[in-house]
Amino acid sequence: MFGRIALIGIGLIGSSLAHVIRREGLAGHVAVSTRSEATLGRARELGLGDSYTTDPAEAVRDADLVIVSVPVGASGAVAAAISGALKPGAIITDVGSTKRSVIDQMLPHMPEGVHFIPGHPIAGTEYSGPDAGFAALFTNRWCILTPLPETDPEALDTLKTFWRACGSDIDQMDPDHHDRVLAVVSHLPQLISYNIVGTASDLETVTESEVIKYSASGFRDFTRLAASDPTMWRDVCLHNKEAILEMLSRFSEDLASMQRAIRWEDGKKLFDLFTRTRAIRKSIIEAGQDVEMPDFGRQAARGDGSKS
Amino acid sequence: MFGRIALIGIGLIGSSLAHVIRREGLAGHVAVSTRSEATLGRARELGLGDSYTTDPAEAVRDADLVIVSVPVGASGAVAAAISGALKPGAIITDVGSTKRSVIDQMLPHMPEGVHFIPGHPIAGTEYSGPDAGFAALFTNRWCILTPLPETDPEALDTLKTFWRACGSDIDQMDPDHHDRVLAVVSHLPQLISYNIVGTASDLETVTESEVIKYSASGFRDFTRLAASDPTMWRDVCLHNKEAILEMLSRFSEDLASMQRAIRWEDGKKLFDLFTRTRAIRKSIIEAGQDVEMPDFGRQAARGDGSKS
Ligand SMILES: NC(=O)c1ccc[n+]([C@@H]2O[C@H](COP(=O)([O-])OP(=O)(O)OC[C@H]3O[C@@H](n4cnc5c(N)ncnc54)[C@H](OP(=O)(O)O)[C@@H]3O)[C@@H](O)[C@H]2O)c1
Ligand SMILES: NC(=O)c1ccc[n+]([C@@H]2O[C@H](COP(=O)([O-])OP(=O)(O)OC[C@H]3O[C@@H](n4cnc5c(N)ncnc54)[C@H](OP(=O)(O)O)[C@@H]3O)[C@@H](O)[C@H]2O)c1
Repeated sequence: MFGRIALIGIGLIGSSLAHVIRREGLAGHVAVSTRSEATLGRARELGLGDSYTTDPAEAVRDADLVIVSVPVGASGAVAAAISGALKPGAIITDVGSTKRSVIDQMLPHMPEGVHFIPGHPIAGTEYSGPDAGFAALFTNRWCILTPLPETDPEALDTLKTFWRACGSDIDQMDPDHHDRVLAVVSHLPQLISYNIVGTASDLETVTESEVIKYSASGFRDFTRLAASDPTMWRDVCLHNKEAILEMLSRFSEDLASMQRAIRWEDGKKLFDLFTRTRAIRKSIIEAGQDVEMPDFGRQAARGDGSKS
Repeated sequence: MFGRIALIGIGLIGSSLAHVIRREGLAGHVAVSTRSEATLGRARELGLGDSYTTDPAEAVRDADLVIVSVPVGASGAVAAAISGALKPGAIITDVGSTKRSVIDQMLPHMPEGVHFIPGHPIAGTEYSGPDAGFAALFTNRWCILTPLPETDPEALDTLKTFWRACGSDIDQMDPDHHDRVLAVVSHLPQLISYNIVGTASDLETVTESEVIKYSASGFRDFTRLAASDPTMWRDVCLHNKEAILEMLSRFSEDLASMQRAIRWEDGKKLFDLFTRTRAIRKSIIEAGQDVEMPDFGRQAARGDGSKS
């Protein structure tokens, strides 16, 4: 599909791309670039690409598709570093979890004649680094593209075909709307998870070992997200600040109202709130975005039996 | 192990007990009782017991072990109903998610000569009703017993042996400490989940269908808990009010401090917070209370391939 693809950043997302590009035969040559020698060496050991360099400019030279998969705060510096080496007609995209800030950082460095199309695959795990990747990461997941008004329709189509080949469905959205949607479906849950794990480990009356021991009663559900990469999430917070603060304040308002209902023992209000949230899970399962096995199918995964 | 066991309440927990009692041969006769004809009929269809009645007093007559598995707010009424029919020497226990309130409700109805030992298996799923139960629910999970100062050690030992036969490890705790521990490991996560799902479905700028579509980016992790039974959780809120309000206010304080760090773009503070929460997940996995498969092993459960 492409002569040469350059992967700038080879962590969870970059290495998953490497796997799926290989599996689907989407490139003649995959050039891998990452900041550190250590990560680069590991990528080489894993055989993720055809060439390896810590110099992103070298990787993008002659590339028809460049995919930047680094923490969003590093997008500007990467764009500046590759700017002079980009091939005319090349498609440059990214996978960053925020879009307005990535555009603001990268667009000024994009030379005439290349196609810069920001993107975000809605797929991930709590693991990071080049060992974490796997080809099926994008299967049945959405990939949101946020093209600019001037984006060439043909280049956009090519990029869509690429993501479809990776197993994804494509959506297209305005970057600001993307940031707002992701603030609620991703950034808010993430921050709430970090926060609740923080709260639970700071109590005087309940020990951390009790929290761990009895975590199967609910708490553990939050710890998966709270195990995610701190650098990535610090950057997301700093680069989607307004939308995140808005969602946090909506959340806090609602929480205050729930607290009040508990304080005043308003059982009816609590019952009503707890009832209307059920339907959403049903829809998520129907939409194929989760499994309906009790307990996320953990028991089955561990092989100690469950009714399903 | 017991001649006759009476199961009062035959939902998720009661029916799981029925399955494991059968599998392990823990009773000569299992008497099933539930409030409604509908649930009782379903329990009979599923063959969960040896006799069936909507009259709890009839079920407990001659029972050596009585297990009450109803929403905590119903404990008092059930205790009153069975009080006169309990066999001298019988062990009466419960599985309620709060302990102080259950004791306050049930103890006054316990006649001389029976052994009332409150308990709480730390195991559950988001499903409820008699169809939801399965024998492995308690495997490798903790069961917390909160015996009273006057509890007979021999009866306590018998109950421990029963729960061990169900696959559980036993812990013993003061009821008030139990309520505080559970407020943080279970009730707080549950309420936060209900709240975030509520917030997300109430936004003007992001539609519910967007929330569902992109839920794999984090939001869906919360929806499992938010699909839990509203009656059970209303009762828990009303019956562990003080501890829950305390935990909610700690959580809110911490959240306010995180909001401030985002507002002031304090990257270092965010990074530090996001770092210290990682260790807890590791400990939970090591303690056997979760699986380390990326994504809770959802991909494996669905059978569409994952690296593990
Ligand atoms: N993880 C998810 O669930 C997920 C999902 C969708 C989108 N995303 C987005 O995908 C991007 C990559 O995430 P990931 O999970 O793949 O991260 P990751 O596994 O931590 O890998 C990060 C990669 O970026 C490089 N990098 C880190 N800091 C850098 C810097 N300051 N300058 C240049 N390169 C730097 C790393 O290089 P070295 O190791 O050599 O330092 C590594 O190659 C992020 O923008 C994230 O928002 C993540
Ligand atoms: N679900 C969990 O994850 C979990 C985990 C640990 C402990 N617990 C505790 O276990 C207990 C039972 O929970 P569950 O999940 O098994 O609930 P469930 O599946 O909803 O079943 C509830 C049972 O209680 C009966 N019941 C409901 N309201 C009643 C009332 N007012 N008076 C008498 N009986 C009533 C129901 O009878 P009908 O259907 O006939 O009305 C049914 O048999 C609760 O105290 C809960 O706190 C739950």
